[in-house]
Amino acid sequence: MAVYTDVSDEALTAFLRDYDLGGLVAFRGIAEGVENSNFSLRTGAGDFILTLYEKRVDPGELPWFIGLMRHLAARNVSCPLPVAGRDGEPLRVLNNRPAAITTFLPGVWPRRVRPDHCRPLGEALARLHLAGRDYPPERRNALGPDSWRPLLDRSRDGGDAVQPGLVAELDQALDRILPAWPRALPRGQIHADLFPDNVFFLQREVSGLIDFYFACTDLLAYDLAVCVNAWCFEADGQFNVTKARALVAGYESVRPLGPEERDALPVLAQGSAIRFALTRLFDWLNTPPGAMVTRKDPMDYVRRLRFHLAVDGPEGYGL
Amino acid sequence: MAVYTDVSDEALTAFLRDYDLGGLVAFRGIAEGVENSNFSLRTGAGDFILTLYEKRVDPGELPWFIGLMRHLAARNVSCPLPVAGRDGEPLRVLNNRPAAITTFLPGVWPRRVRPDHCRPLGEALARLHLAGRDYPPERRNALGPDSWRPLLDRSRDGGDAVQPGLVAELDQALDRILPAWPRALPRGQIHADLFPDNVFFLQREVSGLIDFYFACTDLLAYDLAVCVNAWCFEADGQFNVTKARALVAGYESVRPLGPEERDALPVLAQGSAIRFALTRLFDWLNTPPGAMVTRKDPMDYVRRLRFHLAVDGPEGYGL
Repeated sequence: MAVYTDVSDEALTAFLRDYDLGGLVAFRGIAEGVENSNFSLRTGAGDFILTLYEKRVDPGELPWFIGLMRHLAARNVSCPLPVAGRDGEPLRVLNNRPAAITTFLPGVWPRRVRPDHCRPLGEALARLHLAGRDYPPERRNALGPDSWRPLLDRSRDGGDAVQPGLVAELDQALDRILPAWPRALPRGQIHADLFPDNVFFLQREVSGLIDFYFACTDLLAYDLAVCVNAWCFEADGQFNVTKARALVAGYESVRPLGPEERDALPVLAQGSAIRFALTRLFDWLNTPPGAMVTRKDPMDYVRRLRFHLAVDGPEGYGL
Repeated sequence: MAVYTDVSDEALTAFLRDYDLGGLVAFRGIAEGVENSNFSLRTGAGDFILTLYEKRVDPGELPWFIGLMRHLAARNVSCPLPVAGRDGEPLRVLNNRPAAITTFLPGVWPRRVRPDHCRPLGEALARLHLAGRDYPPERRNALGPDSWRPLLDRSRDGGDAVQPGLVAELDQALDRILPAWPRALPRGQIHADLFPDNVFFLQREVSGLIDFYFACTDLLAYDLAVCVNAWCFEADGQFNVTKARALVAGYESVRPLGPEERDALPVLAQGSAIRFALTRLFDWLNTPPGAMVTRKDPMDYVRRLRFHLAVDGPEGYGL
C-alpha cells in the first residue's frame, strides 16, 4: 500500500506546467509498491505514473536509475520510460521530494504464479541483462553480500523473538555462503528485485517490468537466483521444480548461462534468500505497528534458505 | 488506503467473461476509499473501476445503491454508472464478495479545499437532490439521529481516554440536539458522505461524485450540513464563512432552501458533526493498531460540534 505523500491538485497542476503533457484529467493513488508514493496520472497526452521518491531512495542515485530506464526503454525493454520536462530533465521536485513522471505500462501482475509465467519471465530477464550491457555507469549493490553480516548485526538483539535460534542459524548460513560467494561470474546491470508484483503480463507475455529502484551492477546470475526465490516456491513453502526449469529455460533461450554460472546457482540462491530474509527481519523488528506497510514474514525466506542450503548442485533446480 | 481483498489475474479474467468489455489490459489497486476494495481496470472497452464490497456494506442493500447510481447517471449526474454483465445484472460475486464494475470518472479530488470549490459543490449537491426525487425506493439512514445514542453507548467505556470528559460532553450535546431535531423538512435521496475525496473536479467544475455507499433517504438539508462540516473548516479547525456562503449559494442557485430548512441549519450541522465524531470515536477505539486504515481523529468533529452548538441561527453561517 503506498501513498506516503499526497499531492494537492494545485501542486500537481503547477508541476505539470513544466511538461508538455496537456492538462490534468485524472489522478489516483496506487495501492502498490512499498518504497515510494505512486499515482496514476491522466493528462491530455495520455496515461502516466507519477512517482514521489521517499526516504529509502537516495536522491543522488536517482539519475542512475532514470538513466538505466531510459537506456533499457530505448532498447525495447518494456520498462517505465521517464518523461522529460520542457527543459529536457526527467527528474524534478514535488512536495519537497524528488519526483518523476514515467510512461504507463499495460498488463497485470500475477497474484498467483503459474508455470507458464516463468518462461516468459526468464526471457524478459535475459533481455534486460543484454540490453543493459552498454549502460556504462555502475551502481554498487547496497544489499549485496558485504551488507549481509552488518544487516544481521542490526537484528541481532530482536531476531530470536521471531524464532528462537534464528540469529545463530543466519550466522551459520553466512559463515558458509560468504566464503563460497563467486566473484568472477559475468556482471552487468541487474534488476535485483524482480518479484511478481514488478512484472506485468498481457496475454501470457511479459508486457512490463517496473520498480527499478534496487537495480545495480552485480552478477547477472544472481538476478536469476532472485527470481528462483520469488517465483518458484509455492505458498506452502514447497519448491516447484517445473517453474524453475521453465524460468531457466526461458532465460537461456536468450542468454545461455556459462557452466560456472550454473554451478554457482545454489550459492547464489542461498545468498538471495538470506538477503530477503535479512531485510524482512530488519523491517519486521523496526516497522511501527501503526505503519501503513504490511510487514512480510522473514521466515518465508528463512525456509527458502534452508532449502537452498540442502541443494548440492544445479541438478537440485532441475537443470 | 483500500485494497482489503486482492484479485488474481485468473479470477479477474474469468469474471470479465461475464461482461462485454473485451480483454483485460491493466489492473491496479487504488489507494483511496476506506470501506471497500477498489481497482482501476482497463479493458478493450476502456477504463472502469472494479469494487469489491467489504464487510461494512450489507449485500442486501447493494441493489438499492446500484439502482440509485443508475438512476442518477441517467439524469446526467456524474456518478459511477454500474456496468451490467451480459445477463443484464451489474451486481456479481468475485472472491466471495459482492462486486461491481462502474464507469471511470475523470477529475481530481481537492486535497486542499478552496472557496472556489464550494459553489460548484453546492450546485452538484442540489442537482443530485433534484435528480433523486423520482427514485422511489427508500433506504433508512443507518447513521441517522436514532443511531447516535446507541453509537455513543458503544464508546462509553473508552471514550474518555481520547479526551477526559468527552463522553459527558457528547451526552449533553445529544440531550440538546435530539429533541430539537427537525422531522418535517423536505426529504429525499441524499449522499450523506460528500467529503472532498468523494468529489472530483476538472477545470473548476465538478466532474464526478463517487462513493454512494452511505446514501440514504433523509432530510435534504442534512446533506448540505454534512458538506458544511466537510468542506468549510480549515485544517486548524477554524470555520470559513466564505466557503459556507459559496456552498449554500451554489446549492440555492439550483434548489432554494425553504425558510424552515435555513432555520434548521445549526441543528443539522450539530447533528452532522456529532454523527462523524461518534463514528470516528468508535473506529478510533476499535481499529487494531496494525490495520491498514488510517484512523481519523474524532476530536476534529468534536471541535466542529462545539462551533455549531454556539451558533444561534443561519446568520452564523453567513446567510
